[in-house]
Amino acid sequence: FKVTPVRTQHADYLVALGPKDVDLRRIAALPGVRDVHRVSDDYKLVSRKWRVRPTVLDLGDGIHLGEGSLSIVAGPCSIENVDQMEAVMQHLVQNGVRMMRGGVFKPRSSPYSFRGLGLEGLRDFYRLARQHGLRIVTEVMQVSQVEEMYDFVDVFQVGARNTQNFNLLDALGGVDKPVLLKRGVSGTIEELLHSAEYIFSGGNEDIILCERGIRTFETASRNTLDLNAVPILKEKTHLPVFVDPSHGIGLREHVAPLALAGIMAGADGILYETAPVPERAASDGQQTLNFHESARLVEAMRRTYALRQELVEQELV
Amino acid sequence: FKVTPVRTQHADYLVALGPKDVDLRRIAALPGVRDVHRVSDDYKLVSRKWRVRPTVLDLGDGIHLGEGSLSIVAGPCSIENVDQMEAVMQHLVQNGVRMMRGGVFKPRSSPYSFRGLGLEGLRDFYRLARQHGLRIVTEVMQVSQVEEMYDFVDVFQVGARNTQNFNLLDALGGVDKPVLLKRGVSGTIEELLHSAEYIFSGGNEDIILCERGIRTFETASRNTLDLNAVPILKEKTHLPVFVDPSHGIGLREHVAPLALAGIMAGADGILYETAPVPERAASDGQQTLNFHESARLVEAMRRTYALRQELVEQELV
Amino acid sequence: FKVTPVRTQHADYLVALGPKDVDLRRIAALPGVRDVHRVSDDYKLVSRKWRVRPTVLDLGDGIHLGEGSLSIVAGPCSIENVDQMEAVMQHLVQNGVRMMRGGVFKPRSSPYSFRGLGLEGLRDFYRLARQHGLRIVTEVMQVSQVEEMYDFVDVFQVGARNTQNFNLLDALGGVDKPVLLKRGVSGTIEELLHSAEYIFSGGNEDIILCERGIRTFETASRNTLDLNAVPILKEKTHLPVFVDPSHGIGLREHVAPLALAGIMAGADGILYETAPVPERAASDGQQTLNFHESARLVEAMRRTYALRQELVEQELV
Amino acid sequence: FKVTPVRTQHADYLVALGPKDVDLRRIAALPGVRDVHRVSDDYKLVSRKWRVRPTVLDLGDGIHLGEGSLSIVAGPCSIENVDQMEAVMQHLVQNGVRMMRGGVFKPRSSPYSFRGLGLEGLRDFYRLARQHGLRIVTEVMQVSQVEEMYDFVDVFQVGARNTQNFNLLDALGGVDKPVLLKRGVSGTIEELLHSAEYIFSGGNEDIILCERGIRTFETASRNTLDLNAVPILKEKTHLPVFVDPSHGIGLREHVAPLALAGIMAGADGILYETAPVPERAASDGQQTLNFHESARLVEAMRRTYALRQELVEQELV
Repeated sequence: FKVTPVRTQHADYLVALGPKDVDLRRIAALPGVRDVHRVSDDYKLVSRKWRVRPTVLDLGDGIHLGEGSLSIVAGPCSIENVDQMEAVMQHLVQNGVRMMRGGVFKPRSSPYSFRGLGLEGLRDFYRLARQHGLRIVTEVMQVSQVEEMYDFVDVFQVGARNTQNFNLLDALGGVDKPVLLKRGVSGTIEELLHSAEYIFSGGNEDIILCERGIRTFETASRNTLDLNAVPILKEKTHLPVFVDPSHGIGLREHVAPLALAGIMAGADGILYETAPVPERAASDGQQTLNFHESARLVEAMRRTYALRQELVEQELV
Repeated sequence: FKVTPVRTQHADYLVALGPKDVDLRRIAALPGVRDVHRVSDDYKLVSRKWRVRPTVLDLGDGIHLGEGSLSIVAGPCSIENVDQMEAVMQHLVQNGVRMMRGGVFKPRSSPYSFRGLGLEGLRDFYRLARQHGLRIVTEVMQVSQVEEMYDFVDVFQVGARNTQNFNLLDALGGVDKPVLLKRGVSGTIEELLHSAEYIFSGGNEDIILCERGIRTFETASRNTLDLNAVPILKEKTHLPVFVDPSHGIGLREHVAPLALAGIMAGADGILYETAPVPERAASDGQQTLNFHESARLVEAMRRTYALRQELVEQELV
Repeated sequence: FKVTPVRTQHADYLVALGPKDVDLRRIAALPGVRDVHRVSDDYKLVSRKWRVRPTVLDLGDGIHLGEGSLSIVAGPCSIENVDQMEAVMQHLVQNGVRMMRGGVFKPRSSPYSFRGLGLEGLRDFYRLARQHGLRIVTEVMQVSQVEEMYDFVDVFQVGARNTQNFNLLDALGGVDKPVLLKRGVSGTIEELLHSAEYIFSGGNEDIILCERGIRTFETASRNTLDLNAVPILKEKTHLPVFVDPSHGIGLREHVAPLALAGIMAGADGILYETAPVPERAASDGQQTLNFHESARLVEAMRRTYALRQELVEQELV
Repeated sequence: FKVTPVRTQHADYLVALGPKDVDLRRIAALPGVRDVHRVSDDYKLVSRKWRVRPTVLDLGDGIHLGEGSLSIVAGPCSIENVDQMEAVMQHLVQNGVRMMRGGVFKPRSSPYSFRGLGLEGLRDFYRLARQHGLRIVTEVMQVSQVEEMYDFVDVFQVGARNTQNFNLLDALGGVDKPVLLKRGVSGTIEELLHSAEYIFSGGNEDIILCERGIRTFETASRNTLDLNAVPILKEKTHLPVFVDPSHGIGLREHVAPLALAGIMAGADGILYETAPVPERAASDGQQTLNFHESARLVEAMRRTYALRQELVEQELV
């Protein structure tokens, strides 16, 4: 056996890769062993083959992420200034949304595009959010930022271009704050689970997976939102699964139906973009909702989620 | 102007391709002209740019396809024998489903696979369906079959491998029965609309479009169901849009959530596979529901559709 | 065993699908059996697992297609008129090219585009080609055309939208003229081989496969020419493999390097588009060479093929 | 105008984004301005629109990368130990190959796979290479490694998962050693050029682009080598373009024909994997050549490149 010891914020594990024909009872009988499972998947600790109950993350103040409640995370693509943040936060609080998204480090294809406010902006973002009782989700792009950002982040987001940035995943394994891991632009479901395994085996169990559209031949939408991934992920892993319809379709007028579709597909949370004046946003304005659209979407999502819960309880899905 | 006259079962049209700077009022004033529209899309008659109201097809006996009601079309991949058909039909009638799908000509990758019962099977299928008050949808694979099948078909289905079989589309333009046109395995939304234009401009207005999954790099599912296509198609065309979650994901246990997601994305109908004993089906058993699963799905779809109608009426989506 | 008898223009075969643990010697010993092979591939008669020597087609007049010589097939996308044909034919004859391509039935995405001259044009094409000692390759789009075209065709081409038009493949199995089968726009290599098996098992052994680019996310080129497919196909099947760089890249200025690359990848033939005045071609002008470019390409291809033959003989590839 | 000053190891530039209708002569007349160009591409400094002559990198000892000579870079996927390195180096020297590839930091999908020897291994690799007169190309995975690796690297390689790791690109803009930038697994040609622009605008002009296969629906090969990208890149940028057939097809027996195809498509260099005993390699053994195969490939590549040079000189391509 090749054994990897894993110590997370919640427990100690030993991952043993080796022959199949082992009598698990002998291992279970060893002193100090609480439980032993055989996991046939290539990923291990994130697999539902051993942890059957879904993982629910607790962010404090009654904010939970995972099965049993719908998480809504909204906000602008880029954090731009205090006025913008204040406006979004008031909108979220008024609509009972507890989590805000917003980037201060923006990965941009061209070096000449706006790259975000940086750490300075993050401090303001975090401070203001705390004042409004909100939790924040924001993207980390490289290893050195993990420590720099740590004090000002509730949930670290790993963007679609970094899903296989293994050094970054390793580094996020070393912190005790949750990580929202987006699927790669052309990443398979299997690869997403392997990337989550990096974080978990690095020591951090608190991971959320996020489907955000994949790259295909279709050009009528920015990406192809792959809602197949939702029930498949929910079957394969105990981790929460979110959907980002804003990047998934990239067209403001169609974000709402895709968000609701994501919920009926089984998503535990929806991440979408909203800003005071989408037309003037520094990035991604064409997929950003204004507050009026956002408020209606929040209401529609809650009612859709309520129906899904009913259908689940009555064993209709 | 290059003018193409189009006579359908419902009206006469002139499609004129040419310069943009024409005064439409002069054309509108000509004798015999009822209405004139400028359509900037490459496809014309299927565009919502001139026909703003959604098309609803009337199959008789109170069966309508299109906006305003949810169409459910269920049945086996392949028609196999009378017992199978009887069992499916009783199941559908018991659950209030009015339309049955089933193939008698099966396109198969390998020449050595089961290729369907053919015309003989179709006659039985149609006769039995009529006895149960059901309408049938079945695939036509080539021009010569259009006439052979005509008397025994309610809705002709064009499969994903024939979406750009232009001769077949032309031939279906010449009949006065509805056509359910599936999106090509790697067909764009634009190409699907062009293929619908073939049928319409050939003389047949009664067309249903169907998203059934596209081919991508992902191998965890049979295809990638592209629900982005639903709101995009609903915006671009007046034709009804259906979703086929069975082919869209190809995994029996996940068909239901994707069907419900399709409805929340805006689909006017759902097409799925059910059979008495999926495990023994001649084809596609791995994506076919048994009757118990099917009955629950029908109930869940109706409640999901009811919620969507509510949300639409309250202008929440 | 499920046994399918196959009678082609060259031989009689029995394809038996069944258990693996059969003693082939017992079958080989039966009267009338010349040879028996076990083929583990899903396709059988087109597999190199039983016919190790490459298939070479003989079109008469010393024109052979397949390993051992480079086949060059050139001509316009669409046959437009006699002057155009005459000009192309003179160009081909002057450069020693023996085969001409050109479509008279054109599959077009939009019903309002030019759809070709039809059967009338084909007769002229065939007659003129015979006068110049050329063989012609032209696309057949539906079953009924197979018989109509038969007398005026040297090689039937199946286009990329019809690779899985199984009725058409069946019909082409029934003729004794060669078929050039293009890979589907989103068809796998495996599917291409299955489609070839349709033709072969229908009774026609004379098949050429053609890689012509697949659909991917890349938009800088019309398609993505998959030259990986060339050595993979040459390994899996005994049939000749051609490459179509014109459709494969879709950019006139880059057709030549891709043609040469196709030859070094192992292609037995190159199919490309040339016309007197590409800028005025009725279709595909942006990927069509003028005669000057075409003449240089023919020379470059011959020298490239000569080098490859040398490298093969010296066992360097 | 938004002006970005760029200082590289070779020159000073000002990149000005702004209105098109500017009289360039007025700018050209300013004191200190040597040359001014209008570049319509979104990327600027890497565009061939202003630097028409191809960039050639000089690695010393007569080793040049770029147009005018064929660069061959060979070696194992992972550096494993001194014996392996010694064997490969002797093989390369014997065959006149001047550059060796080999990874010491290995990006692996699973956290439980071999991740390379790390910095320790790199020091040995560099020292041994110097003894044999070889230059090395090796992958850098994160910002902090740039400095750590600097003294022991001739060419930094950016792998296909890091093509849009913008922080890493920024960091590599700050060094004065060449960077070999691989195309992303699902990266477009346009995105590759933007990523190169990051490095150049960060201050480092010495960049090599490398096509290594993209992710498509095809599963018969590991990736789909996109040789279309070669002439397209050569047209759009002045930077050298290499091809990696090992990752491009992923099948050892077919690496050679794809390497030769890459050369005929216009590549300035070929990067491939070779190891003493491919079957025992720690990674990628299935696409690695043994020395016998490698020696034959080197010879075949040289002769293919010589032919291409001849054809270019005679203006046949």
